[in-house]
Formats: sequence, C-alpha cells, structure tokens
Amino acid sequence: MQIPYDEKKFDSLMDDSGIDLVLANTRQNIRYLSGGYFFHFHERFTAFGESQYTPLVGVPKGKQDQSFYIGHQNESGQATEENLWFTNRINCQRVTSVSGENAAIAIKKLGLEKGTIAVEKDFLPSSALDTMRKELPDANFVEALYVLEELRAVKSDEEIELMRRITEADAEAIELGFQSGKGGTTTKEIAQTVERELTNRGVCFLWVFTSAGTKMLRAPSNKTWEIGEVLHLDAGGSENDYLTDVCRMGVRGEPSKQASDVYTSCLAIQDEVRSVIRKGEHYNTIYNLGEKLVEESGHGSYGSFIIHGVGLISHEQPRFGPDIERELESGMMISIETDIRHPEVGYVKLEDTVVVTDTGCEGLGDAGREFYTIIE
Amino acid sequence: MQIPYDEKKFDSLMDDSGIDLVLANTRQNIRYLSGGYFFHFHERFTAFGESQYTPLVGVPKGKQDQSFYIGHQNESGQATEENLWFTNRINCQRVTSVSGENAAIAIKKLGLEKGTIAVEKDFLPSSALDTMRKELPDANFVEALYVLEELRAVKSDEEIELMRRITEADAEAIELGFQSGKGGTTTKEIAQTVERELTNRGVCFLWVFTSAGTKMLRAPSNKTWEIGEVLHLDAGGSENDYLTDVCRMGVRGEPSKQASDVYTSCLAIQDEVRSVIRKGEHYNTIYNLGEKLVEESGHGSYGSFIIHGVGLISHEQPRFGPDIERELESGMMISIETDIRHPEVGYVKLEDTVVVTDTGCEGLGDAGREFYTIIE
Repeated sequence: MQIPYDEKKFDSLMDDSGIDLVLANTRQNIRYLSGGYFFHFHERFTAFGESQYTPLVGVPKGKQDQSFYIGHQNESGQATEENLWFTNRINCQRVTSVSGENAAIAIKKLGLEKGTIAVEKDFLPSSALDTMRKELPDANFVEALYVLEELRAVKSDEEIELMRRITEADAEAIELGFQSGKGGTTTKEIAQTVERELTNRGVCFLWVFTSAGTKMLRAPSNKTWEIGEVLHLDAGGSENDYLTDVCRMGVRGEPSKQASDVYTSCLAIQDEVRSVIRKGEHYNTIYNLGEKLVEESGHGSYGSFIIHGVGLISHEQPRFGPDIERELESGMMISIETDIRHPEVGYVKLEDTVVVTDTGCEGLGDAGREFYTIIE
Repeated sequence: MQIPYDEKKFDSLMDDSGIDLVLANTRQNIRYLSGGYFFHFHERFTAFGESQYTPLVGVPKGKQDQSFYIGHQNESGQATEENLWFTNRINCQRVTSVSGENAAIAIKKLGLEKGTIAVEKDFLPSSALDTMRKELPDANFVEALYVLEELRAVKSDEEIELMRRITEADAEAIELGFQSGKGGTTTKEIAQTVERELTNRGVCFLWVFTSAGTKMLRAPSNKTWEIGEVLHLDAGGSENDYLTDVCRMGVRGEPSKQASDVYTSCLAIQDEVRSVIRKGEHYNTIYNLGEKLVEESGHGSYGSFIIHGVGLISHEQPRFGPDIERELESGMMISIETDIRHPEVGYVKLEDTVVVTDTGCEGLGDAGREFYTIIE
C-alpha cells in the first residue's frame, strides 16, 4: 500500500518538533492521513450508545509504514473495498476510552511508551487522553495541530480539482438561492434552496448566512427579503471534508446608487488583493494591502478585510497577519473576504477562493461576482 | 424566559447522583437544554482556525434559572431572534480551552468551585477539561451522560411529532431510493437518491447502508444492484439533531421463494415484538421475546434481534437487556431491528421506530414495510 501524503515532509515536521508519533482523531486529519477514507456511517454524527465512535490514526516518525488505524468492526467491509492503506488495523468497541486504551497498546508495541506523542488536544475527548495518560505514564503529550496543518498546507492537483468542483457548485447553488427569492420569500426558505442545490451537486451542505436588509441578522429566519434590500449569501459545504466557502451579493429590484457604490468598492478591493497574490509574495504584504484598501475605501469604520487559508479546515495555513513575512507557495489555497457592514445599505460582503500559482492565482468558482439583480 | 425541559426532574436526577452542576458540551444536549437552539453556522462542523467552536451549557442544581451559556459573539443575532432562554450568556473566542476557562469562572461565580461537576467525558475535548481542572482544583469531575439521558428518556408530544415527521420522510426517501434502482444502478447512486430525497423533505441526511446481494457490503459502493438481488436500505437523518433510523427491503425483479420466506419471517418477528410493547411492560420481557423469536425462526445462527431507545442519540434510554426489569413509560421512543444475514439470500433487515403509549405502541413512518419489488 502506498502512503497517500508526503511522507518525507511529515517525518521532517515531526523531527523539527521533537515528536515521536502523531495521533490524529479529527475527521479532517483522519481523511488526510488515510487518503480520503472515513467510515461512512459516522461521517456526520458520532454519538452512539453511551459514548461515541472515536477512530484514531497513529503515525510513528521514521516508520510511517507501521502506522495504525483504530476503528470499528462494522467498517471492515468499507475499509477493504476502499483499500485503506494502514496494514495495522485495530477494531474496537465504539467507546472513546477503549479507543484510547487501544492506542496506548499500539504505542507500546512501537516502543514509544516514553515518547513524545502529539494529539489534537482541542478535539480529542478527555476520556481518551486520560486513559492514555494512565496507560503511558512516561509519555509526553504535546499538540499535533501545527505539524498536521503544515503537512496539509500545499494542496495537490487532486485536492485543487476537488475544491474547484465544489466551489463552482457552491457559486451555482448561491445563484439559485438568489433566484428563489423572487416574489419575496424568507431567508430560511432561501437557505433551504441553497442546501438542496448543494446536495443536488453532491456537496454536503454545511451552512449559509443570509443577511437581508440593514438589520445584519445573518442567521436564516422568518425575515422576508423585501424589494430594494441587499442580501448576502455566504454558503459553505464539503466533499470528503474539503470545504467550499463563497459569499455573493444580490438585491431585489434595482440597487440604490449607494448600494451599487458599496458593492463596487467591495469588488475592487477583492480584485486588487487578488492581483498581487502569487508564489513568493509575503503574507504580510497581502494582509496589509487588504487592510489599507478597506481603510481607503471610506468604509473603514464598519468594514473589514479577512484573509485565511482553507482546505480541510476553515482558517488554516496560510495564516496571514500584519507581521508574518512568510512566502506563499504554489498550491496554497486562500479565502479572501471583504466585509462592509454599511449602516444604510446593509451587510455587503464578497468571499472568493483562490489557489496560488507560480505566476499569480486562479479563482475557483468565480461565477456570480456581479451584483445579482432580481427583477420581477 | 421559561425553562424548556422538566426542571424538577433534572434537579431530582442531579440530587440522586450527588451532582452540583451539569456542564453539557454535545450538540444534542445543548439542543435539549436550550429548547432546540444551536448556532446554525456550526451545526455540521466545528473545527475552525486553530481550535473548534466549543459551546457549553452549565446548569446548577436547585437554581436552574442561573444556568449559563458559553458561545461566540457571532451567534448573538440568532440567539436573540430565537429567544435563547439563558439569561447568563457569555461570548468568547472559538478556542476550546477558552470556553473551559469561561466555564470555570462561571462555576466560581455560582460558588461551586468545590462542587461535583458532571461533564460529558467521552465528548468534552481534553483541553477544556484540563483547563477546568487547573482553574477548579477542588472540584470533582464526574460523568454527566446518565442524568442527561434519563432527563431525555420520555419524549414530549412536540418531540414525538417531530420524530413522526422525519421518520415518515425517511420511509419515503427509502422508497424513492429503491425506485431509483430500476434498470440497474450502483448502491452509491441509490445512496445519493436517498440523500437528496431526505434533504428535499427538510431532513439532514446522516447515513445510508446499502447491502445488495449476498456479499453483505453495507457501505455504498460501485456495486450494481442486479436483478434477483435483495437490497436493504437502512437510512438515517435528523432535524434539530433528533434522529430517524429506518430499514426497508427491496428486490429487483421477483424475489425467490427463499428470499420471500426470510423476509416474511423477519416481518413477523418485528410485528410480534411490537404487539407486546406498552406502558408498564418490562424491558427484559421484550428483549427476551425478540431473542427467542429469532432463535425459533431457524435463522438464529446468522440472525440477531436489536432493540434500543432513540431520540437525540442512537441507542439511548430505554436500554434493553436480558435482565433489565425496568418498566416502559408512555412517550419512550424505541427502535426495533431484526437482522438476518442469510448466506444465500443476503442481508435481510427491517427496522421500525415506535413510541410507547398507555395501551400499546404507535409505529412512526411505517410506510414500505412490504417487500419492495422493482419490476422493470
């Protein structure tokens, strides 16, 4: 079986951090380390009986071919069908502490009972870590998040293609959401349209923010989208846990001059930031440009610029900031948001996903960046 | 604001277990204690940035009106719109340990820093519990699961109505799944139909098992449903985290005599068990009857009978067993499964949801308990 990620990079990341074994428990990292696998029954819920389904993947530094997978016997058929690469597959009950016990046994077998074990502390249930601490009293438990997100930071062609497909589907679903508002419907009904249309396109719906008018209520509600009101639809979904996250603007009827101006300003900021993104550009250069543009637009007091990496996690590497001088690499995936909460116009926001290339960046799912005007 | 669950019962359960405060962190229990509320953005994913969204609800015994809710500032609009009842609402960053810190502060303010605090140990992230242990060194942390599931064990009319609606939707989606297999499609395509049809009915799709033919592979795959093969569709979904869980049988073309016999036997077991369910009946009487019927059916060596409570959790109270003499109460919700992995026929299974009444039980979503025969 072939290891489906960059084995060398992972060894080197573990080495730099003094980690002997990474133990992953989130769906996202299990997907990544397994090459896309997750037990389908528990993809969307894990609570079961008196505990929860708690799969674990353990990857020892320098001997990744000896990685172990802890799951449940009911997934054996799927694991075989999908050629799950871990040769050391351990089935146990759907009980969190029992998963922890089995991890401790597997770690001992690898001779790492006194090792530095990196876990996802903000995700690993306390009973699993407590069990491991008891079973491995000489082990040192540290945080796994940073090595795992570095490992995932540069996307493969296959990952980019997946994200292109779902981001396009997202933009289409949003467009149909705007169209469904014709005649006046509630933001909850519009949200249901977006959910259905994402599902129809094979994307697992995750959320949609629906801010209509000037009240800035972003949660879907019984509020009707009225003529003259701007609406933003900021919708997300996933496939194999990879995320799409897109925001587009619409207006019922003709937009006011003021609304058009705010929208045009928002789009111009997005475009100008996008124009400087390329391999080798510094994180802070891009971040500071976005901040400056919002300030100069005249909407600084109620506007904000947000830029973050996206992939399996919303807001992952690359992590931007005013002083972070790191350089972008080709294949990094970035979400760019300009967010103007205009007191008279409403909540104007655009969000685009781009992938960094050697010479610039490619927008994924760029459909519908115009101001949707729903004329009845 | 009115407390949306049985406050007296909860006080009494905490009292019996020596608990001073229950701190809930799962989506299911937050929904229950809040009266249906959950921040819509994080209903289906919580990982965000370097941590995850970690809402917490703290309910102190004897003064439940002083319960606290820890969430994020971005949900304030929704919380206000939906009249979230907690008057003590605390907003913090989306960082698990910070939620834990805030819980510790709130617990101190309630004077319970030396109290017995019940947490969901198999769900609460380790960093949150570690933080609380540090901030509340004299507190005693115990398990919250049992008091919470007892609190939820008897369903209200509103909960029953919700589960009736989604279970009916599930049965309809399954029927359309069978019909989509006409002409021969893969189990993955059939699964997609079930997902779409659940979504169209406002139910959040969670899973579908699709076992076609005699291989017993239950995961959706590229296997085509062939003429003469039995197929079971065991599908689940949720609304506000309440679960539906239904299994129905189909066959492409006319079933063989053997398949019909196994199916009839499976249905008869389900019906006979259902006929004895009523308020006051003992858990073990029902459990042992199901076991005996499977044994007597002649399919005992590869058949099994499974019976469990269902609501916000799959396999919750009532918890059946051969020696559990507890009596059923009206309003308890039960899932009944007969599962016959017949080596020549395939995986024959029916699963029904019933709610206990004073005089018997009512089946929810009973459509399609016949053997679907897809004639082309």
